[in-house]
Amino acid sequence: MPEVRIREVGPRDGLQAEAYIEVGARVALIADLIRSGVHTIEAVSFVSEKAVPAMAGAAAVLESLGPLPGVTIYALVPNVKGAARAAECGIDHFTVTVSASAAYNAKNVRMTIDESVAEVAAIRDLIGPSPYVDAVVSCAFGSPYEGDLAPADVHALGERLVSAGANASTYADTTGMATPRRIADLVAVTGPRIGLHLHETRGTAMVNAYAALELGVRDFDTSIGGLGGSPFAAGAGGNLSTEDFVHLLDDVGLSTGIDLEQLLTAAARLATVLGRPLPGKVANAGPRSRLAAG
Amino acid sequence: MPEVRIREVGPRDGLQAEAYIEVGARVALIADLIRSGVHTIEAVSFVSEKAVPAMAGAAAVLESLGPLPGVTIYALVPNVKGAARAAECGIDHFTVTVSASAAYNAKNVRMTIDESVAEVAAIRDLIGPSPYVDAVVSCAFGSPYEGDLAPADVHALGERLVSAGANASTYADTTGMATPRRIADLVAVTGPRIGLHLHETRGTAMVNAYAALELGVRDFDTSIGGLGGSPFAAGAGGNLSTEDFVHLLDDVGLSTGIDLEQLLTAAARLATVLGRPLPGKVANAGPRSRLAAG
Repeated sequence: MPEVRIREVGPRDGLQAEAYIEVGARVALIADLIRSGVHTIEAVSFVSEKAVPAMAGAAAVLESLGPLPGVTIYALVPNVKGAARAAECGIDHFTVTVSASAAYNAKNVRMTIDESVAEVAAIRDLIGPSPYVDAVVSCAFGSPYEGDLAPADVHALGERLVSAGANASTYADTTGMATPRRIADLVAVTGPRIGLHLHETRGTAMVNAYAALELGVRDFDTSIGGLGGSPFAAGAGGNLSTEDFVHLLDDVGLSTGIDLEQLLTAAARLATVLGRPLPGKVANAGPRSRLAAG
Repeated sequence: MPEVRIREVGPRDGLQAEAYIEVGARVALIADLIRSGVHTIEAVSFVSEKAVPAMAGAAAVLESLGPLPGVTIYALVPNVKGAARAAECGIDHFTVTVSASAAYNAKNVRMTIDESVAEVAAIRDLIGPSPYVDAVVSCAFGSPYEGDLAPADVHALGERLVSAGANASTYADTTGMATPRRIADLVAVTGPRIGLHLHETRGTAMVNAYAALELGVRDFDTSIGGLGGSPFAAGAGGNLSTEDFVHLLDDVGLSTGIDLEQLLTAAARLATVLGRPLPGKVANAGPRSRLAAG
Protein backbone atom coordinates (compact mmCIF):
# COMPACT_ATOMS: atom_id res chain seq x y z
CA MET A 1 0.00 0.00 0.00
CA PRO A 2 1.34 3.44 -0.85
CA GLU A 3 1.93 5.75 2.10
CA VAL A 4 0.35 8.68 0.28
CA ARG A 5 -2.76 8.08 -1.80
CA ILE A 6 -3.10 10.23 -4.88
CA ARG A 7 -6.33 10.70 -6.75
CA GLU A 8 -5.40 12.02 -10.17
CA VAL A 9 -7.93 14.63 -11.30
CA GLY A 10 -6.18 15.77 -14.47
CA PRO A 11 -8.61 14.19 -16.94
CA ARG A 12 -11.44 16.02 -15.15
CA ASP A 13 -10.34 19.13 -13.23
CA GLY A 14 -7.19 19.46 -15.31
CA LEU A 15 -8.96 19.53 -18.64
CA GLN A 16 -12.30 21.11 -17.78
CA ALA A 17 -11.14 24.67 -18.43
CA GLU A 18 -9.22 23.73 -21.59
CA ALA A 19 -10.55 23.67 -25.12
CA TYR A 20 -12.36 20.40 -25.88
CA ILE A 21 -10.00 17.50 -26.36
CA GLU A 22 -11.32 14.54 -28.24
CA VAL A 23 -12.24 11.32 -26.47
CA GLY A 24 -9.34 9.33 -27.91
CA ALA A 25 -6.73 11.70 -26.50
CA ARG A 26 -8.44 11.73 -23.11
CA VAL A 27 -8.53 7.94 -23.04
CA ALA A 28 -4.84 7.84 -24.03
CA LEU A 29 -4.04 10.22 -21.15
CA ILE A 30 -5.88 7.99 -18.68
CA ALA A 31 -4.08 4.92 -20.05
CA ASP A 32 -0.75 6.76 -19.67
CA LEU A 33 -1.61 7.62 -16.09
CA ILE A 34 -2.46 4.00 -15.27
CA ARG A 35 0.80 2.91 -16.88
CA SER A 36 2.57 5.30 -14.49
CA GLY A 37 1.09 3.52 -11.50
CA VAL A 38 -1.79 5.92 -10.86
CA HIS A 39 -4.63 3.77 -9.58
CA THR A 40 -7.27 6.29 -8.61
CA ILE A 41 -8.44 8.70 -11.28
CA GLU A 42 -11.25 11.21 -11.54
CA ALA A 43 -11.70 10.54 -15.21
CA VAL A 44 -14.88 12.29 -16.26
CA SER A 45 -17.56 14.73 -15.24
CA PHE A 46 -21.28 14.34 -15.92
CA VAL A 47 -22.00 18.05 -15.95
CA SER A 48 -23.96 19.98 -18.54
CA GLU A 49 -22.05 19.68 -21.81
CA LYS A 50 -23.30 23.14 -22.67
CA ALA A 51 -21.90 24.67 -19.47
CA VAL A 52 -18.60 22.80 -19.59
CA PRO A 53 -18.00 21.75 -23.21
CA ALA A 54 -14.53 20.32 -22.42
CA MET A 55 -16.20 17.55 -20.41
CA ALA A 56 -18.51 16.39 -23.20
CA GLY A 57 -18.28 12.73 -24.12
CA ALA A 58 -17.96 11.29 -20.60
CA ALA A 59 -19.87 8.14 -21.53
CA ALA A 60 -17.69 7.64 -24.60
CA VAL A 61 -14.51 8.02 -22.52
CA LEU A 62 -15.72 5.37 -20.06
CA GLU A 63 -16.86 3.01 -22.79
CA SER A 64 -13.54 3.33 -24.57
CA LEU A 65 -11.63 2.70 -21.34
CA GLY A 66 -13.54 -0.53 -20.72
CA PRO A 67 -12.95 -2.54 -17.55
CA LEU A 68 -9.82 -1.56 -15.62
CA PRO A 69 -9.01 -4.12 -12.93
CA GLY A 70 -7.30 -2.62 -9.91
CA VAL A 71 -8.09 0.93 -10.99
CA THR A 72 -10.67 3.14 -9.31
CA ILE A 73 -12.41 5.52 -11.68
CA TYR A 74 -14.30 8.44 -10.21
CA ALA A 75 -16.87 10.54 -12.02
CA LEU A 76 -17.80 14.02 -10.85
CA VAL A 77 -21.56 14.49 -10.74
CA PRO A 78 -23.18 17.83 -9.94
CA ASN A 79 -26.65 16.45 -9.23
CA VAL A 80 -29.00 13.43 -9.45
CA LYS A 81 -29.30 13.77 -13.20
CA GLY A 82 -25.54 13.54 -13.60
CA ALA A 83 -25.39 10.63 -11.16
CA ALA A 84 -27.99 8.76 -13.19
CA ARG A 85 -25.97 9.24 -16.37
CA ALA A 86 -22.80 8.09 -14.56
CA ALA A 87 -24.49 5.05 -13.03
CA GLU A 88 -25.74 4.01 -16.46
CA CYS A 89 -22.08 3.94 -17.52
CA GLY A 90 -21.21 1.61 -14.65
CA ILE A 91 -19.56 4.24 -12.44
CA ASP A 92 -19.34 3.13 -8.81
CA HIS A 93 -17.17 5.97 -7.42
CA PHE A 94 -18.70 9.42 -7.39
CA THR A 95 -17.44 12.84 -6.41
CA VAL A 96 -20.07 15.44 -5.60
CA THR A 97 -18.96 19.01 -4.96
CA VAL A 98 -20.80 21.20 -2.49
CA SER A 99 -19.35 24.56 -1.58
CA ALA A 100 -18.88 25.83 1.93
CA SER A 101 -19.53 29.23 0.33
CA ALA A 102 -23.20 29.84 -0.38
CA ALA A 103 -22.36 32.38 -3.08
CA TYR A 104 -19.89 30.08 -4.79
CA ASN A 105 -22.33 27.16 -4.62
CA ALA A 106 -25.03 29.28 -6.23
CA LYS A 107 -22.67 30.20 -9.09
CA ASN A 108 -21.25 26.71 -9.50
CA VAL A 109 -24.36 24.50 -9.28
CA ARG A 110 -27.20 27.02 -8.90
CA MET A 111 -28.32 25.54 -5.60
CA THR A 112 -28.37 26.61 -1.99
CA ILE A 113 -26.12 24.59 0.29
CA ASP A 114 -29.20 22.90 1.78
CA GLU A 115 -30.37 21.95 -1.71
CA SER A 116 -26.92 20.52 -2.46
CA VAL A 117 -26.96 18.45 0.74
CA ALA A 118 -30.41 17.16 -0.25
CA GLU A 119 -29.03 16.37 -3.69
CA VAL A 120 -26.36 14.14 -2.13
CA ALA A 121 -29.09 12.28 -0.26
CA ALA A 122 -31.04 11.91 -3.49
CA ILE A 123 -27.94 10.64 -5.29
CA ARG A 124 -27.47 8.02 -2.57
CA ASP A 125 -31.13 6.99 -2.97
CA LEU A 126 -30.66 6.67 -6.70
CA ILE A 127 -27.41 4.70 -6.74
CA GLY A 128 -28.13 2.45 -3.76
CA PRO A 129 -25.91 1.64 -0.81
CA SER A 130 -22.83 0.10 -2.51
CA PRO A 131 -21.23 2.82 -4.63
CA TYR A 132 -18.66 5.07 -3.00
CA VAL A 133 -19.44 8.77 -2.78
CA ASP A 134 -16.76 11.32 -1.92
CA ALA A 135 -18.22 14.68 -0.98
CA VAL A 136 -15.88 17.47 -2.02
CA VAL A 137 -16.37 20.58 0.10
CA SER A 138 -15.20 23.43 -2.08
CA CYS A 139 -13.98 26.85 -0.87
CA ALA A 140 -13.04 25.01 2.33
CA PHE A 141 -10.25 27.49 3.11
CA GLY A 142 -12.05 30.66 2.22
CA SER A 143 -14.38 32.07 -0.37
CA PRO A 144 -13.72 34.88 -2.81
CA TYR A 145 -17.23 36.11 -1.94
CA GLU A 146 -17.61 35.71 1.83
CA GLY A 147 -13.90 35.66 2.75
CA ASP A 148 -12.77 33.40 5.57
CA LEU A 149 -15.09 30.62 6.65
CA ALA A 150 -14.94 29.12 10.13
CA PRO A 151 -13.24 25.69 10.07
CA ALA A 152 -15.98 24.36 12.37
CA ASP A 153 -18.62 25.37 9.81
CA VAL A 154 -16.65 23.86 6.95
CA HIS A 155 -16.24 20.62 8.89
CA ALA A 156 -19.93 20.64 9.83
CA LEU A 157 -20.81 20.73 6.12
CA GLY A 158 -18.50 17.77 5.49
CA GLU A 159 -20.24 15.89 8.30
CA ARG A 160 -23.70 16.80 6.99
CA LEU A 161 -22.72 15.41 3.61
CA VAL A 162 -21.61 12.15 5.21
CA SER A 163 -24.89 12.01 7.12
CA ALA A 164 -26.69 12.59 3.82
CA GLY A 165 -25.02 9.55 2.28
CA ALA A 166 -21.42 10.36 1.35
CA ASN A 167 -18.70 7.92 2.44
CA ALA A 168 -15.98 10.52 2.98
CA SER A 169 -15.11 14.17 2.59
CA THR A 170 -12.43 15.92 0.63
CA TYR A 171 -11.76 19.58 1.36
CA ALA A 172 -10.94 21.72 -1.66
CA ASP A 173 -9.02 24.97 -1.80
CA THR A 174 -10.94 25.97 -4.89
CA THR A 175 -9.58 29.49 -5.23
CA GLY A 176 -6.19 29.14 -3.58
CA MET A 177 -6.94 30.76 -0.23
CA ALA A 178 -5.37 28.01 1.90
CA THR A 179 -2.13 28.53 3.76
CA PRO A 180 -0.33 26.18 6.14
CA ARG A 181 -2.08 27.96 8.99
CA ARG A 182 -5.53 27.46 7.43
CA ILE A 183 -4.72 23.82 6.74
CA ALA A 184 -3.75 23.34 10.39
CA ASP A 185 -6.88 25.16 11.56
CA LEU A 186 -9.13 22.83 9.55
CA VAL A 187 -7.27 19.62 10.37
CA ALA A 188 -7.49 20.58 14.06
CA VAL A 189 -11.26 20.22 13.66
CA THR A 190 -11.54 17.39 11.13
CA GLY A 191 -8.60 15.24 12.11
CA PRO A 192 -6.18 14.00 9.45
CA ARG A 193 -8.41 11.39 7.78
CA ILE A 194 -9.59 13.72 5.07
CA GLY A 195 -8.77 14.26 1.45
CA LEU A 196 -7.28 17.54 0.26
CA HIS A 197 -7.68 19.15 -3.13
CA LEU A 198 -5.26 22.06 -3.49
CA HIS A 199 -4.77 24.81 -6.01
CA GLU A 200 -1.72 26.87 -6.93
CA THR A 201 -3.51 30.22 -7.31
CA ARG A 202 -1.35 31.97 -4.71
CA GLY A 203 1.72 29.75 -4.95
CA THR A 204 0.81 27.61 -1.96
CA ALA A 205 -0.39 24.24 -3.31
CA MET A 206 2.83 22.40 -2.49
CA VAL A 207 3.48 24.09 0.84
CA ASN A 208 -0.09 23.39 1.91
CA ALA A 209 0.26 19.74 0.91
CA TYR A 210 3.50 19.56 2.88
CA ALA A 211 1.93 21.16 5.94
CA ALA A 212 -0.93 18.65 5.65
CA LEU A 213 1.50 15.73 5.33
CA GLU A 214 3.14 16.86 8.56
CA LEU A 215 -0.30 16.75 10.20
CA GLY A 216 -0.89 13.20 8.98
CA VAL A 217 -3.12 13.81 5.96
CA ARG A 218 -2.46 11.11 3.36
CA ASP A 219 -5.12 11.60 0.65
CA PHE A 220 -4.53 14.19 -2.03
CA ASP A 221 -6.10 15.16 -5.33
CA THR A 222 -3.48 16.21 -7.86
CA SER A 223 -3.48 16.95 -11.55
CA ILE A 224 -0.91 15.93 -14.13
CA GLY A 225 1.04 18.93 -15.33
CA GLY A 226 -0.55 21.11 -12.68
CA LEU A 227 -3.41 21.77 -15.07
CA GLY A 228 -6.78 22.86 -13.90
CA GLY A 229 -8.95 25.27 -12.10
CA SER A 230 -12.63 25.83 -12.07
CA PRO A 231 -14.03 27.51 -15.16
CA PHE A 232 -16.17 29.48 -12.66
CA ALA A 233 -13.26 30.70 -10.48
CA ALA A 234 -11.37 33.48 -12.23
CA GLY A 235 -7.59 33.18 -11.96
CA ALA A 236 -8.07 29.88 -10.20
CA GLY A 237 -4.55 28.70 -10.96
CA GLY A 238 -3.82 25.07 -11.56
CA ASN A 239 -4.12 22.10 -9.29
CA LEU A 240 -1.22 20.76 -7.29
CA SER A 241 0.88 19.10 -9.97
CA THR A 242 0.98 15.30 -9.70
CA GLU A 243 4.55 15.00 -10.88
CA ASP A 244 5.81 17.90 -8.75
CA PHE A 245 4.20 16.29 -5.72
CA VAL A 246 5.46 12.78 -6.52
CA HIS A 247 8.92 14.27 -7.08
CA LEU A 248 8.80 15.77 -3.59
CA LEU A 249 7.30 12.67 -1.97
CA ASP A 250 9.93 10.44 -3.57
CA ASP A 251 12.65 12.65 -2.13
CA VAL A 252 11.03 12.88 1.29
CA GLY A 253 10.63 9.09 1.26
CA LEU A 254 6.86 8.67 1.17
CA SER A 255 5.68 6.09 -1.35
CA THR A 256 2.91 6.69 -3.86
CA GLY A 257 3.22 3.66 -6.15
CA ILE A 258 3.70 6.08 -9.04
CA ASP A 259 6.72 5.95 -11.34
CA LEU A 260 7.92 9.52 -11.86
CA GLU A 261 9.69 8.90 -15.16
CA GLN A 262 6.60 7.27 -16.66
CA LEU A 263 4.48 10.11 -15.34
CA LEU A 264 6.81 12.64 -17.00
CA THR A 265 6.40 10.76 -20.27
CA ALA A 266 2.63 11.05 -19.84
CA ALA A 267 2.98 14.76 -19.09
CA ALA A 268 5.13 15.31 -22.18
CA ARG A 269 2.45 13.63 -24.31
CA LEU A 270 -0.24 15.78 -22.75
CA ALA A 271 1.78 18.95 -23.45
CA THR A 272 1.93 17.86 -27.09
CA VAL A 273 -1.84 17.36 -27.17
CA LEU A 274 -2.41 20.81 -25.64
CA GLY A 275 0.24 22.40 -27.83
CA ARG A 276 1.91 24.29 -25.01
CA PRO A 277 4.13 23.70 -21.96
CA LEU A 278 2.33 22.53 -18.83
CA PRO A 279 2.29 24.77 -15.75
CA GLY A 280 3.91 22.03 -13.65
CA LYS A 281 7.59 22.60 -12.94
CA VAL A 282 9.19 19.14 -12.96
CA ALA A 283 7.54 18.41 -16.32
CA ASN A 284 9.63 21.26 -17.70
CA ALA A 285 12.81 21.13 -15.62
CA GLY A 286 13.05 17.35 -15.25
CA PRO A 287 13.62 15.59 -11.95
CA ARG A 288 16.48 16.68 -9.68
CA SER A 289 18.23 13.40 -10.45
CA ARG A 290 18.52 14.25 -14.15
CA LEU A 291 21.99 15.73 -14.56
CA ALA A 292 23.16 18.12 -17.24
CA ALA A 293 24.99 16.68 -20.20
CA GLY A 294 27.93 19.07 -20.23
CA MET B 1 12.72 43.96 14.40
CA PRO B 2 11.01 41.75 11.86
CA GLU B 3 10.81 38.06 12.74
CA VAL B 4 11.82 37.05 9.22
CA ARG B 5 14.54 39.03 7.46
CA ILE B 6 14.15 39.31 3.73
CA ARG B 7 16.94 40.35 1.40
CA GLU B 8 15.29 41.42 -1.84
CA VAL B 9 17.36 40.26 -4.81
CA GLY B 10 14.97 41.27 -7.60
CA PRO B 11 17.01 44.20 -8.93
CA ARG B 12 20.01 41.86 -9.24
CA ASP B 13 19.07 38.17 -9.54
CA GLY B 14 15.57 39.01 -10.74
CA LEU B 15 16.68 41.17 -13.62
CA GLN B 16 20.01 39.62 -14.59
CA ALA B 17 18.51 37.20 -17.10
CA GLU B 18 16.10 39.78 -18.53
CA ALA B 19 16.74 42.14 -21.41
CA TYR B 20 18.60 45.27 -20.27
CA ILE B 21 16.38 47.68 -18.36
CA GLU B 22 17.54 51.25 -18.15
CA VAL B 23 18.98 52.68 -14.98
CA GLY B 24 16.00 54.93 -14.26
CA ALA B 25 13.55 52.03 -14.20
CA ARG B 26 15.86 49.97 -11.98
CA VAL B 27 16.22 52.88 -9.56
CA ALA B 28 12.43 53.32 -9.55
CA LEU B 29 12.02 49.63 -8.73
CA ILE B 30 14.44 49.92 -5.81
CA ALA B 31 12.62 53.03 -4.58
CA ASP B 32 9.30 51.16 -4.82
CA LEU B 33 10.75 48.29 -2.81
CA ILE B 34 12.01 50.64 -0.09
CA ARG B 35 8.59 52.30 0.00
CA SER B 36 7.12 48.82 0.62
CA GLY B 37 9.25 48.40 3.72
CA VAL B 38 12.01 46.32 2.15
CA HIS B 39 15.20 47.39 3.93
CA THR B 40 17.80 45.01 2.58
CA ILE B 41 18.28 44.89 -1.17
CA GLU B 42 20.81 43.29 -3.46
CA ALA B 43 20.61 46.15 -5.91
CA VAL B 44 23.42 45.67 -8.39
CA SER B 45 26.07 43.30 -9.65
CA PHE B 46 29.60 44.28 -10.62
CA VAL B 47 30.05 41.48 -13.11
CA SER B 48 31.35 41.73 -16.66
CA GLU B 49 28.89 43.90 -18.57
CA LYS B 50 29.72 41.84 -21.63
CA ALA B 51 28.84 38.54 -19.91
CA VAL B 52 25.70 39.87 -18.20
CA PRO B 53 24.52 42.92 -20.15
CA ALA B 54 21.39 43.29 -18.01
CA MET B 55 23.58 44.28 -15.07
CA ALA B 56 25.38 47.10 -16.88
CA GLY B 57 25.23 50.49 -15.22
CA ALA B 58 25.68 49.35 -11.62
CA ALA B 59 27.60 52.51 -10.70
CA ALA B 60 24.93 54.70 -12.28
CA VAL B 61 22.18 52.88 -10.34
CA LEU B 62 24.00 53.45 -7.06
CA GLU B 63 24.78 57.07 -7.86
CA SER B 64 21.18 57.74 -8.77
CA LEU B 65 19.95 56.08 -5.58
CA GLY B 66 22.17 58.28 -3.43
CA PRO B 67 22.30 57.83 0.35
CA LEU B 68 19.53 55.65 1.76
CA PRO B 69 19.43 55.89 5.55
CA GLY B 70 18.19 52.71 7.20
CA VAL B 71 18.53 50.70 4.00
CA THR B 72 21.22 48.10 3.40
CA ILE B 73 22.32 47.87 -0.22
CA TYR B 74 24.24 44.80 -1.30
CA ALA B 75 26.28 44.48 -4.47
CA LEU B 76 27.17 41.11 -5.94
CA VAL B 77 30.84 40.93 -6.86
CA PRO B 78 32.35 37.95 -8.66
CA ASN B 79 35.98 38.81 -7.91
CA VAL B 80 38.45 41.40 -6.63
CA LYS B 81 38.02 43.53 -9.72
CA GLY B 82 34.26 43.71 -9.17
CA ALA B 83 34.78 44.42 -5.47
CA ALA B 84 37.09 47.31 -6.32
CA ARG B 85 34.46 48.80 -8.64
CA ALA B 86 31.78 48.35 -5.95
CA ALA B 87 33.94 49.85 -3.20
CA GLU B 88 34.60 52.89 -5.38
CA CYS B 89 30.82 53.40 -5.44
CA GLY B 90 30.69 53.34 -1.65
CA ILE B 91 29.28 49.81 -1.31
CA ASP B 92 29.81 48.36 2.15
CA HIS B 93 27.75 45.15 1.83
CA PHE B 94 29.01 42.57 -0.63
CA THR B 95 27.74 39.22 -1.79
CA VAL B 96 30.27 36.85 -3.30
CA THR B 97 29.07 33.61 -4.85
CA VAL B 98 31.17 30.48 -4.72
CA SER B 99 29.69 27.22 -5.87
CA ALA B 100 29.81 23.99 -3.93
CA SER B 101 29.90 22.41 -7.40
CA ALA B 102 33.33 22.62 -9.00
CA ALA B 103 31.84 22.29 -12.49
CA TYR B 104 29.26 24.99 -11.86
CA ASN B 105 31.87 27.31 -10.35
CA ALA B 106 34.07 26.86 -13.39
CA LYS B 107 31.18 27.78 -15.70
CA ASN B 108 29.93 30.66 -13.54
CA VAL B 109 33.16 32.43 -12.57
CA ARG B 110 35.86 30.42 -14.42
CA MET B 111 37.68 29.57 -11.20
CA THR B 112 38.33 26.48 -9.16
CA ILE B 113 36.68 26.45 -5.74
CA ASP B 114 40.10 27.03 -4.15
CA GLU B 115 40.65 30.04 -6.39
CA SER B 116 37.23 31.39 -5.41
CA VAL B 117 38.01 31.00 -1.71
CA ALA B 118 41.30 32.83 -2.27
CA GLU B 119 39.35 35.53 -4.13
CA VAL B 120 37.17 36.09 -1.05
CA ALA B 121 40.33 36.54 1.03
CA ALA B 122 41.67 38.97 -1.56
CA ILE B 123 38.38 40.88 -1.53
CA ARG B 124 38.63 41.19 2.25
CA ASP B 125 42.19 42.45 1.91
CA LEU B 126 41.05 45.02 -0.61
CA ILE B 127 38.00 46.36 1.21
CA GLY B 128 39.41 46.25 4.73
CA PRO B 129 37.85 44.89 7.89
CA SER B 130 34.64 46.96 8.16
CA PRO B 131 32.47 46.09 5.15
CA TYR B 132 30.10 43.15 5.44
CA VAL B 133 30.64 40.20 3.13
CA ASP B 134 28.00 37.51 2.69
CA ALA B 135 29.37 34.41 1.01
CA VAL B 136 26.69 32.75 -1.08
CA VAL B 137 27.36 29.04 -1.53
CA SER B 138 25.62 28.13 -4.76
CA CYS B 139 24.42 24.65 -5.76
CA ALA B 140 24.21 24.00 -2.00
CA PHE B 141 21.46 21.39 -2.46
CA GLY B 142 22.84 19.61 -5.47
CA SER B 143 24.55 20.31 -8.74
CA PRO B 144 23.26 19.63 -12.23
CA TYR B 145 26.77 18.36 -13.01
CA GLU B 146 27.88 16.32 -9.99
CA GLY B 147 24.43 15.52 -8.57
CA ASP B 148 24.00 15.42 -4.80
CA LEU B 149 26.66 17.08 -2.68
CA ALA B 150 27.25 16.02 0.93
CA PRO B 151 25.82 18.62 3.36
CA ALA B 152 29.01 18.36 5.42
CA ASP B 153 31.07 19.37 2.36
CA VAL B 154 28.70 22.22 1.53
CA HIS B 155 28.88 23.47 5.10
CA ALA B 156 32.68 23.11 5.08
CA LEU B 157 32.84 25.42 2.08
CA GLY B 158 30.67 27.97 3.89
CA GLU B 159 33.04 27.78 6.87
CA ARG B 160 36.10 28.12 4.66
CA LEU B 161 34.60 31.26 3.17
CA VAL B 162 34.04 32.71 6.63
CA SER B 163 37.63 31.83 7.55
CA ALA B 164 38.72 33.57 4.36
CA GLY B 165 37.01 36.77 5.42
CA ALA B 166 33.24 36.50 4.88
CA ASN B 167 30.96 37.53 7.75
CA ALA B 168 28.22 35.01 7.04
CA SER B 169 27.05 32.36 4.62
CA THR B 170 23.93 32.06 2.52
CA TYR B 171 23.16 28.72 0.92
CA ALA B 172 21.63 28.91 -2.54
CA ASP B 173 19.51 26.35 -4.35
CA THR B 174 20.75 27.65 -7.66
CA THR B 175 19.12 25.05 -9.88
CA GLY B 176 16.11 24.05 -7.79
CA MET B 177 17.38 20.75 -6.41
CA ALA B 178 16.43 21.43 -2.80
CA THR B 179 13.56 19.65 -1.11
CA PRO B 180 12.40 19.86 2.51
CA ARG B 181 14.53 16.79 3.21
CA ARG B 182 17.66 18.39 1.71
CA ILE B 183 16.98 21.60 3.63
CA ALA B 184 16.75 19.60 6.86
CA ASP B 185 19.91 17.67 6.02
CA LEU B 186 21.90 20.88 5.54
CA VAL B 187 20.44 22.73 8.53
CA ALA B 188 21.27 19.68 10.66
CA VAL B 189 24.93 20.46 9.88
CA THR B 190 24.94 24.26 9.71
CA GLY B 191 22.38 25.12 12.35
CA PRO B 192 19.58 27.58 11.58
CA ARG B 193 21.62 30.81 11.56
CA ILE B 194 22.13 30.79 7.81
CA GLY B 195 20.61 32.60 4.88
CA LEU B 196 18.71 30.70 2.21
CA HIS B 197 18.35 31.61 -1.43
CA LEU B 198 15.71 29.43 -3.08
CA HIS B 199 14.57 28.85 -6.63
CA GLU B 200 11.28 27.64 -8.05
CA THR B 201 12.72 25.40 -10.77
CA ARG B 202 10.99 22.27 -9.49
CA GLY B 203 8.08 23.92 -7.72
CA THR B 204 9.69 23.76 -4.28
CA ALA B 205 10.83 27.30 -3.42
CA MET B 206 7.96 27.99 -1.05
CA VAL B 207 7.82 24.54 0.54
CA ASN B 208 11.57 24.65 1.12
CA ALA B 209 11.28 28.07 2.72
CA TYR B 210 8.48 26.77 4.93
CA ALA B 211 10.50 23.72 5.95
CA ALA B 212 13.41 26.03 6.77
CA LEU B 213 11.17 28.32 8.82
CA GLU B 214 10.09 25.31 10.86
CA LEU B 215 13.77 24.60 11.52
CA GLY B 216 14.35 28.15 12.72
CA VAL B 217 15.94 29.74 9.64
CA ARG B 218 14.98 33.41 9.49
CA ASP B 219 17.06 34.92 6.65
CA PHE B 220 15.83 34.55 3.10
CA ASP B 221 16.67 35.98 -0.28
CA THR B 222 13.55 36.59 -2.36
CA SER B 223 12.82 38.34 -5.63
CA ILE B 224 9.87 40.57 -6.44
CA GLY B 225 7.54 38.87 -8.89
CA GLY B 226 9.45 35.62 -8.55
CA LEU B 227 11.76 36.81 -11.30
CA GLY B 228 15.21 35.45 -11.73
CA GLY B 229 17.48 32.59 -12.27
CA SER B 230 21.07 32.37 -13.32
CA PRO B 231 21.76 33.10 -16.97
CA PHE B 232 24.15 30.12 -16.74
CA ALA B 233 21.64 27.63 -15.30
CA ALA B 234 19.27 26.46 -18.01
CA GLY B 235 15.64 26.29 -16.91
CA ALA B 236 16.66 27.78 -13.59
CA GLY B 237 13.16 28.95 -12.76
CA GLY B 238 12.60 32.10 -10.81
CA ASN B 239 13.52 32.96 -7.26
CA LEU B 240 11.13 32.55 -4.38
CA SER B 241 8.69 35.39 -4.96
CA THR B 242 8.90 38.14 -2.34
CA GLU B 243 5.20 38.89 -2.38
CA ASP B 244 4.16 35.21 -2.36
CA PHE B 245 6.42 34.66 0.65
CA VAL B 246 5.28 37.81 2.48
CA HIS B 247 1.67 36.76 1.78
CA LEU B 248 2.33 33.42 3.43
CA LEU B 249 4.33 34.90 6.33
CA ASP B 250 1.59 37.46 7.01
CA ASP B 251 -0.94 34.65 7.22
CA VAL B 252 1.27 32.44 9.35
CA GLY B 253 1.89 35.43 11.63
CA LEU B 254 5.61 36.06 11.13
CA SER B 255 6.47 39.73 10.64
CA THR B 256 8.68 41.02 7.84
CA GLY B 257 8.15 44.78 8.08
CA ILE B 258 6.98 44.70 4.46
CA ASP B 259 3.60 46.03 3.37
CA LEU B 260 2.08 43.53 0.96
CA GLU B 261 -0.24 45.96 -0.82
CA GLN B 262 2.63 48.38 -1.51
CA LEU B 263 4.74 45.48 -2.68
CA LEU B 264 2.00 44.41 -5.09
CA THR B 265 1.91 47.94 -6.46
CA ALA B 266 5.68 47.70 -7.02
CA ALA B 267 5.21 44.33 -8.72
CA ALA B 268 2.50 45.71 -10.99
CA ARG B 269 4.83 48.54 -12.08
CA LEU B 270 7.61 46.06 -12.72
CA ALA B 271 5.29 43.92 -14.87
CA THR B 272 4.53 47.02 -16.91
CA VAL B 273 8.24 47.73 -17.35
CA LEU B 274 8.86 44.14 -18.45
CA GLY B 275 5.76 44.09 -20.62
CA ARG B 276 4.52 40.75 -19.37
CA PRO B 277 2.96 39.14 -16.28
CA LEU B 278 5.38 38.20 -13.52
CA PRO B 279 5.83 34.53 -12.60
CA GLY B 280 4.82 35.21 -9.00
CA LYS B 281 1.31 34.10 -8.13
CA VAL B 282 -0.03 36.68 -5.68
CA ALA B 283 1.02 39.46 -8.07
CA ASN B 284 -1.48 37.97 -10.51
CA ALA B 285 -4.20 36.56 -8.26
CA GLY B 286 -4.11 39.22 -5.56
CA PRO B 287 -3.94 38.49 -1.84
CA ARG B 288 -6.39 36.03 -0.30
CA SER B 289 -8.03 38.93 1.50
CA ARG B 290 -9.07 40.58 -1.77
CA LEU B 291 -12.64 39.45 -2.35
CA ALA B 292 -14.47 39.20 -5.65
CA ALA B 293 -16.68 42.06 -6.64
CA GLY B 294 -19.75 40.03 -7.59
